[in-house]
Formats: sequence, C-alpha cells, structure tokens
Amino acid sequence: MIYNLDMSNTQKNDLLEKVTALAKRRGIIYPNSEIYGGIGGFYDYGPVGVEMKNNLKKYWWKEMVDTREDVVGIDGTIITHPKVWEASGHIENFSDEVIECKKCHQRFRLDDIPDGKCPNCGSKEFTEPRSYNILFETEVGVLEDAKTKVYLRGEACQTIYLDFKNVLDSTRMQIPFGIAQIGKAFRNEVTPGRLTFRSREFEQWDMQFFVHPDDMEKWFEYWKEKRMNFYKNLYRKQENLRLKQHPKDKLAFYAKDAYDIEYKTPWGWAENEGIHWRGDYDLTQHSKFSGKDLSYTDPRSGEKYIPWIVETSGGVDRTLLMLLFDAYEEEDLGDGKSRTVLKVHPDIAGYKAAIFPLVSNKEEIVKKAREIFELLSENIKVVWDDRGNIGKRYRYQDEIGTPHCITVDYETLENDTVTVRDRDTMEQERVKIEDLDEYLS
Amino acid sequence: MIYNLDMSNTQKNDLLEKVTALAKRRGIIYPNSEIYGGIGGFYDYGPVGVEMKNNLKKYWWKEMVDTREDVVGIDGTIITHPKVWEASGHIENFSDEVIECKKCHQRFRLDDIPDGKCPNCGSKEFTEPRSYNILFETEVGVLEDAKTKVYLRGEACQTIYLDFKNVLDSTRMQIPFGIAQIGKAFRNEVTPGRLTFRSREFEQWDMQFFVHPDDMEKWFEYWKEKRMNFYKNLYRKQENLRLKQHPKDKLAFYAKDAYDIEYKTPWGWAENEGIHWRGDYDLTQHSKFSGKDLSYTDPRSGEKYIPWIVETSGGVDRTLLMLLFDAYEEEDLGDGKSRTVLKVHPDIAGYKAAIFPLVSNKEEIVKKAREIFELLSENIKVVWDDRGNIGKRYRYQDEIGTPHCITVDYETLENDTVTVRDRDTMEQERVKIEDLDEYLS
Repeated sequence: MIYNLDMSNTQKNDLLEKVTALAKRRGIIYPNSEIYGGIGGFYDYGPVGVEMKNNLKKYWWKEMVDTREDVVGIDGTIITHPKVWEASGHIENFSDEVIECKKCHQRFRLDDIPDGKCPNCGSKEFTEPRSYNILFETEVGVLEDAKTKVYLRGEACQTIYLDFKNVLDSTRMQIPFGIAQIGKAFRNEVTPGRLTFRSREFEQWDMQFFVHPDDMEKWFEYWKEKRMNFYKNLYRKQENLRLKQHPKDKLAFYAKDAYDIEYKTPWGWAENEGIHWRGDYDLTQHSKFSGKDLSYTDPRSGEKYIPWIVETSGGVDRTLLMLLFDAYEEEDLGDGKSRTVLKVHPDIAGYKAAIFPLVSNKEEIVKKAREIFELLSENIKVVWDDRGNIGKRYRYQDEIGTPHCITVDYETLENDTVTVRDRDTMEQERVKIEDLDEYLS
Repeated sequence: MIYNLDMSNTQKNDLLEKVTALAKRRGIIYPNSEIYGGIGGFYDYGPVGVEMKNNLKKYWWKEMVDTREDVVGIDGTIITHPKVWEASGHIENFSDEVIECKKCHQRFRLDDIPDGKCPNCGSKEFTEPRSYNILFETEVGVLEDAKTKVYLRGEACQTIYLDFKNVLDSTRMQIPFGIAQIGKAFRNEVTPGRLTFRSREFEQWDMQFFVHPDDMEKWFEYWKEKRMNFYKNLYRKQENLRLKQHPKDKLAFYAKDAYDIEYKTPWGWAENEGIHWRGDYDLTQHSKFSGKDLSYTDPRSGEKYIPWIVETSGGVDRTLLMLLFDAYEEEDLGDGKSRTVLKVHPDIAGYKAAIFPLVSNKEEIVKKAREIFELLSENIKVVWDDRGNIGKRYRYQDEIGTPHCITVDYETLENDTVTVRDRDTMEQERVKIEDLDEYLS
C-alpha cells in the first residue's frame, strides 16, 4: 500500500501506529524506561535509530557548517545561568494553556482544542484556561547555603546568543555570519504525544545568522529558500512539504515575519522548522540583563550596531519521525506475498549495506564475507547479517531501509564477485568485490 | 618549551592556565554563561572545540561500533523513570563526602584532602564529613497532581541496561555482544574544577559488553588491552599513559576487578576511562526492581542465564582536555621568535586544512581559493582564512592544531599549484590542486 494523505482517517492513524510498531520492532525508537512502565514523552534511539539520527545530524552539519565559509558551530550546555531565561522571556511567558473538560475531567492544551469540543467525550464545557510554565527546574549546588535554582534550556538557541561575543573574539568571522548548534532542549509538555513529535526531551538544529539591519530582508529570503531546499532534498513526497507564513497577528512582538516549513503527517500539517525574523531582540535583551555590550563594530566602516538575526530552528527528532512517514511503504509482491520497506534517503539510512554470508556454516564463505565487512566498514556503515534464509534477511533489511544487500556465495569463492541487491527495485546484480566501494557510492 | 611532567609545580600549573587561556582565545572551550558571570562546572565548546569533540566522538564510534560486527549503539534520554536510580543504588549511595576547614571555613571533597591539611590555610582541623547526594533532581509534569520527582542521569550507562531487552528483541545480536552509547550525564559536584576535568554536565562514552559468565575473564582481558591501545593511538606522549588496577579494598562489592586508564595531567595521574568487571549486578538489580526477566536464552544450547558485563566507561570532555595537554607546545623559532602549536592527532584536529588566498583584494586569487574550499569541503573539514599576513595566519592555525595550510598565490594562477605547509615540520611544498585530496589524506 502506498500511503498518502488523501486516505481516510483510519488509514492515516494506521500509519502512525505502524511506524511506531516498526520503530520499536526494528531498533529505531524505543520508549524510554519501558521495563519500568515507561515515562511519558521520553524516547530512546535503538541501534538503527542512533545511526539514522547521527546521519541526519551530519547531513545538516555538512550543509550548514562544513561547506560554508560563513557559518561556524558551537556546542553549549543544557544548564545555564538562570538569568538567561529571565532575559529571554521564558520565565514569564514559556507556558502551556491548559483546560479541563467539565464532564470527563480530561485535560488538554488549549491549542489542541480548536473546535472547543472535548475530543474524549464531545462536551463543550471547559474550565477557564490556566497557564503552566514548561521549563524544567533543578538546583545547582548541594550544600544548603549554596543552592541556585536553574533551568534545563527550553530552547537550544539561547546558548548561541550567550557565546556570540566569545565567537567574535576567538574566530575570524565578520558580519554577515552564522553560528550553528545541534543540541538537546527540554520542555515539560502537558500533553506529550505522537511518538517523538512532541516529546519532553528533544534535539534541535539551530542556526542564528547575524546581519546588518539593512541586509535583513535579503538574508531572510535567502534562508527561507535555502532551508526549504534542504527538506526538499531529504523527503521523497514533495507534495507533503510546504512553506507556511505565520499570520501577522500571531507573531512575537519583536518579529516582523516568520515561516514554518511543514510536512503533512497523519494528523495534518506539522512543523519541521521555523525561519524567524528576530531582529535585534535577543542581543538587546542579553545586553540589558547581563550589562555587557553585545554590539558589533564593523572593521571597515567603523559602524557600531546590534546585529539583527535570522534564525533557522528545527527539530531533529521530529524530522526523523517525518522521514519515517515519508519512507514507509507496504508493497504487494504478488502470489500473496508482500513486504514493508523504508525508502529513506540513502544518506540517512542506518546502514549503507548489509553483508550476508549465504550460509553460516561454510568457513570460506564466512571468511570472505568478513573480509568484505572489514574492507567496507573502513569507509561506510555496514551491518553483518547471517541469520535465516536470504529472503528473510532481505525483508529484515528492507524494514530498516538498508539500500543494498551484498550476498557472498559459492560463486564468490570462484570469481570474487558478489550479488548486490537494490532495496527499491529489488533487482540483483553481480559486482566484483574490488568495485564494491565505488558501486555503493 | 616542551611541556613535561618532570617540571616544577609552577610550570605545571602554568600548563593548565595556558591551555585554559588558549582554549578560550581560540574558540575551543568557553565558560558557559560568561556574560552573566559564569556558572561553576559548565563549559561550552566553541567553533574549533565542537569540531574537535565531534571528531573525537566519531573516532570512538568508528572503533567501537562501525568496524565491529559485535557492537551496536543506542542513544538514550537524560531523564528516565526514577526507579532506575533506586535499582542502580545511586539514590542511596551517589554521594560526595564534604568537610569544612574549621579555621578558614572553606569546604572540600574528602577525597581531595588526602593529607588531612587544608590546602587554603594549612589548618588540620576539619568538621566531620557529611554526605551529599550529587544527582540533579527535577520534576516531570506541571499540573499539581501529576508531578513526579525524577533525576538527570548520573551516569549514561544505565540507559544501556534499560534497553538491553529491546536491543535483543529488535536486532540480530547474540551473546557475546556489546551496546555502546555516547551521551551526557550530570553530577552536582561540590567542587567542580580544572576546566572540563570535573564538570557538572559532561559527556561519556560507554560500552557494556554482555558475556556468558564462563567467558568473563577472557573478555575482561580483551577489553583492557583494546581500550588501552585506543588511547595509545590517540596520545603522543606514551609515557604519560598507564593502566592502573583499583586496589581490591576499594572495589564496589559486586566487582571482582577494575582498571583505570590514566593520563598524567599537570595535577598528577587522572582517570580517562574505567574498565569494570560488573558481573551480573546491573541486570539482576533491574530485573528485581522492574519485575521484568532480563535473562538471556542461548539459541543454540538453550541455556538461560543473566549475562555478565564488562564495562568500558570514559569521559569525552576530559579526554579532549588531556589531548590539549598532550598536544600543547611552545617552540623557540630563533631570532627571538616563538610559536605555540597544538600537535594534536590529525583525525581529531578541528580543521584538516586552512585555505589562504594570499591577498584578499585580488579577485582571481580569491576565486581560485574559493574553488579549492568548495572542492575540499566535500570530503574534509577545511577553514577559510583571509585575514592578516601569511605568517600571522600560520601562527593562528598552529594554535588550533590545523595540520595543513594551503596558500593560493600568483603562481597558482599560472600552473594550478598551491603551497602546502605542514604544522609540525613547518616545511612547505608545492602541490598540484588535483593532487590535494590525496596529499591531505
């Protein structure tokens, strides 16, 4: 079955359920602390998932940092000085609005009830909304007289503003330039859900691009297009991708404009990443609260100003989840047979190739397969698979999205060729071992 | 000056101070929240540091996961179900013993005062030691009646035990096999210090290797040697590296044996990584507390048992810090000139090469340099540097450990060759642009 978003709701919910089940069954995503009954909103990545997530992060870093002269990275801590969150406005405003159904007493985020009707019992009677701050709190210091209340960062980007001056002083960057970061953030969500889409511990990929105010418009347009292209290259189903402008009346007071890059999920259009016009808000706030001058002096003109910021801020976990939706297919192979396959971008797939010794009890074959494993694993990520018949191994590798399966068989011992099978076409080809590296890349 | 550990204490402290200053000045490590006066025990990685740390993590992952059939990775959350820390014993026992000098009222970790004499005022009068649990606490859930006290993980490895069963069920691994993870852990240290050596938020690289009890001895020996070789390949100064057995009377009650891999820092031998004989302790505890059977059934013999564990658990941040000590040199170049150079392993260096256009106002030269930047950045990490004279740029790149500097000059425009200068020998060679990729690898 080719999943698409014109299906009925039942079929679409089916996709979320199927992806959740596959993710657990095949070592992509597990509920955290499952043996203890789990903990809402926390997920671990399994052996396949951790490779996919690492690939995804490398893919972003290559595009946003490695191949650019004008962007550098940082990696900041999750716990910071508490004043950061006063300056950013999070202590005052980082809230979920919660309402309770008067009939069935279930609680919801106000945002999640756009129709004003309880999704659980259909009642229209709710309590007044109440605000709850969703920053996680903890204390640094263990001695009674030396404890300080601090917060787990609610968004990773604040660390970039904190390090702005240090980056300027320690590198050769000049405006316009960007600072990029991939790192965890924490939100004490009232209603976490939909697997990793809304979780309480998650990873963000952020880039803050610092510009002269006169160049803001130009760079905002530049990053909108650039980031949209990034996702276009990642997803197969282009019709499920869109760039959506925030309504003017919903913008933060300092923002002149903002766009979301959205992907069409089983529950509707959902945000991947935001492109935000932040102006001079953040550096001005931190200048004010820290008492440090965060302005920039142009080395050529001598002009001194607070740089303006274009932000690109996306969710790593939710992008990976949407890639699973994008890639999942069930194919009818005829004769009552079918397969589930993850047609995920080969750069993101957990393994580039699987190595199968045809039989596991024939020493020369296993030895040859091991040599190939060692040879290939120097440069690409491969996985060893010697269990069950070849057909079953194909099904297994299809489910985790491995683009190629390499079988070492009796013919290999004669002429140093192997069978390479393609995930998407299921076609097989004989390839010389010495040509494998090039064939796979 | 070639720093070595036979120097006087003043000279050695000097090395910690110099590395700290260099790390900040050149974008390797910054104190977190510095504009707000900092927060003790939290450090950010700057543009050079984040690349070095990522390289170090990739280097470990390649050795421990990518090139092995018998180890897979996971990536677990920082916040877990609170019962995890009861089962692990951390809620009861994860404590710092703190004493206070009766004369100057400064407080210390008991461990840090082996001579019983205050390092601050020399007094020998202390209060009785008191225990403080160093787990960070927070609460999940924001509604009054739905809050649960939880902990930031005090060691990353617990997540591996939590996912052990899921990994078995979702992959094709059979014992003996290992689960590896790189991830953050948090300890509310009473006395954080020595830059990132003892910080409150830090990253660990852990591997838990699950074996049949009869094979424990063999695998313990195997991993001791394997891990020691890992660090031997990483450090230049082999004489500063040693494998140290824990005294039998200091072992955890469940451990039969334990070794530390130590590096000689300015303040003495310090732990990089521990190789621990954990036996069946962890899986037994989690079986007991969770009520889930975490035993393993051998698919061939049918034997059912709780696997025993060899753990290799090291600190990423402290390894990077020790690599800075290992690499730091000040060289006398004669004529009153000197340079500071980080002779760090080329796989770990933040940039593999720097690209210098000889002059930044000659369009053809800049264009050619950009082409080379784009060409090389497809495969290796390079940095653009067009500021100041070539000599100054060499000094700058030496300080961050860039193995090669590539200068594009007038001759390049004639014959498509560039000058490649080596960090360690400072020798220069003309290389054809088309040969650069191979020359650098």
